[in-house]
Amino acid sequence: MKIITGGVTAAEGFEAAGVEAGIKYKDRKDMALIYSKKPCVLAGTFTSNVVKAAPVIWDKNVVEGAPFGQAVVINAGIANACTGQEGYGYCERTAARGAKALGVPKEAVLVASTGVIGMQLPIEKIEAGIDKLAQAKADTIAAGTMAAEAIMTTDTRSKQAAVEIDIKGKKVTLGGMCKGSGMIHPNMCTMLAFVTTDAVISKELLTKAVKEDVQDTFNMVSVDGDTSTNDTLLVMANGMAENPEIEEGTPEFALFKEALHYVNESLAKMMAGDGEGATALFETKVVGAATKEDARRLSKSVICSSLTKAAIYGHDANWGRILCALGYSGASFDPEKIELYFESRSGRILIYKDGVAADYSEEEASRILSDPEVRVLVDMKMGTETATAWGCDLTYDYVKINADYRS
Amino acid sequence: MKIITGGVTAAEGFEAAGVEAGIKYKDRKDMALIYSKKPCVLAGTFTSNVVKAAPVIWDKNVVEGAPFGQAVVINAGIANACTGQEGYGYCERTAARGAKALGVPKEAVLVASTGVIGMQLPIEKIEAGIDKLAQAKADTIAAGTMAAEAIMTTDTRSKQAAVEIDIKGKKVTLGGMCKGSGMIHPNMCTMLAFVTTDAVISKELLTKAVKEDVQDTFNMVSVDGDTSTNDTLLVMANGMAENPEIEEGTPEFALFKEALHYVNESLAKMMAGDGEGATALFETKVVGAATKEDARRLSKSVICSSLTKAAIYGHDANWGRILCALGYSGASFDPEKIELYFESRSGRILIYKDGVAADYSEEEASRILSDPEVRVLVDMKMGTETATAWGCDLTYDYVKINADYRS
Repeated sequence: MKIITGGVTAAEGFEAAGVEAGIKYKDRKDMALIYSKKPCVLAGTFTSNVVKAAPVIWDKNVVEGAPFGQAVVINAGIANACTGQEGYGYCERTAARGAKALGVPKEAVLVASTGVIGMQLPIEKIEAGIDKLAQAKADTIAAGTMAAEAIMTTDTRSKQAAVEIDIKGKKVTLGGMCKGSGMIHPNMCTMLAFVTTDAVISKELLTKAVKEDVQDTFNMVSVDGDTSTNDTLLVMANGMAENPEIEEGTPEFALFKEALHYVNESLAKMMAGDGEGATALFETKVVGAATKEDARRLSKSVICSSLTKAAIYGHDANWGRILCALGYSGASFDPEKIELYFESRSGRILIYKDGVAADYSEEEASRILSDPEVRVLVDMKMGTETATAWGCDLTYDYVKINADYRS
Repeated sequence: MKIITGGVTAAEGFEAAGVEAGIKYKDRKDMALIYSKKPCVLAGTFTSNVVKAAPVIWDKNVVEGAPFGQAVVINAGIANACTGQEGYGYCERTAARGAKALGVPKEAVLVASTGVIGMQLPIEKIEAGIDKLAQAKADTIAAGTMAAEAIMTTDTRSKQAAVEIDIKGKKVTLGGMCKGSGMIHPNMCTMLAFVTTDAVISKELLTKAVKEDVQDTFNMVSVDGDTSTNDTLLVMANGMAENPEIEEGTPEFALFKEALHYVNESLAKMMAGDGEGATALFETKVVGAATKEDARRLSKSVICSSLTKAAIYGHDANWGRILCALGYSGASFDPEKIELYFESRSGRILIYKDGVAADYSEEEASRILSDPEVRVLVDMKMGTETATAWGCDLTYDYVKINADYRS
């Protein structure tokens, strides 16, 4: 597996674009397009929120019902959620205009929106934007970056990852982009993520790979515990690598899953590290758990704890808050037995063991916590299961951004 | 039912004190005592966190095993949680010293701690503090207030409530105090709450009343979603009102429960409104829910949403975040049918109906949200169940307090 530069245009046959459509922001790109020269098999996972945005409903229908997909039209600024029949109608108009501009069936056009809930889309601006996108699309790395920039809301940087693998002598590429950075608690989050690949793989097998991997990647991220109405992960495979079809239970499928995991995990970590107002990526790795479910609950509970997140911001080794978060996670364990470490590129330190604080230096702990990527490592001493969850610190800027997001 | 001034000393035969013991803070009271002239029947509810502080374990043993209780010794500054056998030993020494100073059995002395997790108590200071408390105790309102002040940590004001009822010609009084204000998500939170009454009531019936009422009061409060290791509610009844014993299924029991509910709800709301860094009490009332459990989940999900809490701080009618929080609560409903209002002493406004934003004035909504007590009212249109949950806004000061709590 080889890590390469790029995003959604890394794989063969994919084009992208990002343009200014003037939907809500001024002087910035706010619409993106992903387009495949050939029809793609699709896999997708969507928000578990009862309140689902119109584009989520549209895309679910496409992913589950249409034979293939070929394009995704994305806008930032307005989420098209809680917008009733009018909002759903705009999805249809978006897809219809995309279909016309790109020469593909309407049912092959997916849509995604992120931004403020409850406002209607300015559909004429969207339609004009689609025409611009169709003109601008290109298969370059730069075009992929334009798209990744266009889907940002409160993100401070665009997020892309790509990787190459070899499937029986054929180069297969996977690339993706995503955006955060508030209302992020995917189960699925307004996380939007898009992964493209030129692999030849069936829809069933692609779906299986995506559903499994999302449990350990996007669903292990939380910025603020709010599961958005718009969360969407779409994976498109256009088969242009011309590899022999990837079959279940083969080394090739294992390699494909590894590549998908790399792209998903990279994007998930970028999203967490760029959480609203964040100064640090805050990772919690649980090892020695009795069950996988326990490991996931425990690690996620820690990265979701507001008190712990604020302590990370303060570079304060306030490990009691971590013990507390483990304790209310819903998993059972013996607090006297577990071990807890802090680690970062600046070192590693044992903090808690045998039911009491270890004899550590607060100064050293604080130095370790001053890194932009910090990790809590917890050994539950109960079994062999592990899980990792990613979040970020809680800062003044999180409050600032969200006390005044709409204006 | 008559609302009166006072707290834990309002009921007949209860004394209290608050003194400076120099445990962690300088120049402030940090130890409190509640003492009853006569033995009390006890009821208690404690944290559901797997990591339970030593005093929680001690008190559970007393409440469940001892025939009666007569005193509570409380300290602020150090939580005596995650302190191993040494920490539990300090509970025993605290109770023993209290027993000696007050002339009661050791098994009748309850203990409670709040503050930093993981540090050991300075037991000599605690013991000296107990002697001072025993000297200072008094049955005055002022003494109750001293106690309520002594148990504060990041609270900005002390919290007391009291009420009188008439049980067959006898005046029965209930009074209580509590403290917040971080790590508050009782299920049971470090919430500590103490209610005293001079009612004659059996332990069984008192326990039943407390367990039921806590579901609708303390367990409906959240400041930050972190369920503490120390949460404790203790209710003590010493029988000194000499009323005919309160029996189940009688109007007198209904009246007693109403009085208990008033005290508990008052304290719970004070705790929420004084959440760390809060500028407003944020209440969410759900009506028309299909089940009581749904009503509780829905209302609690809204007051726990970081994004909604930040919007409340910004006086921003960002109702999409409320819809979103309802949607991920776990309760199912039809987003097209529900109705949503904002209200406060400044008025009431319909915000959302029929699946889309109502035609409201942002200016008026913002004015309503500028009150120090704001309420979201949601009608689910599915049934007749209701629930109310209390939280607070999310502010810069919450981050400030918690990024630097220990230093």
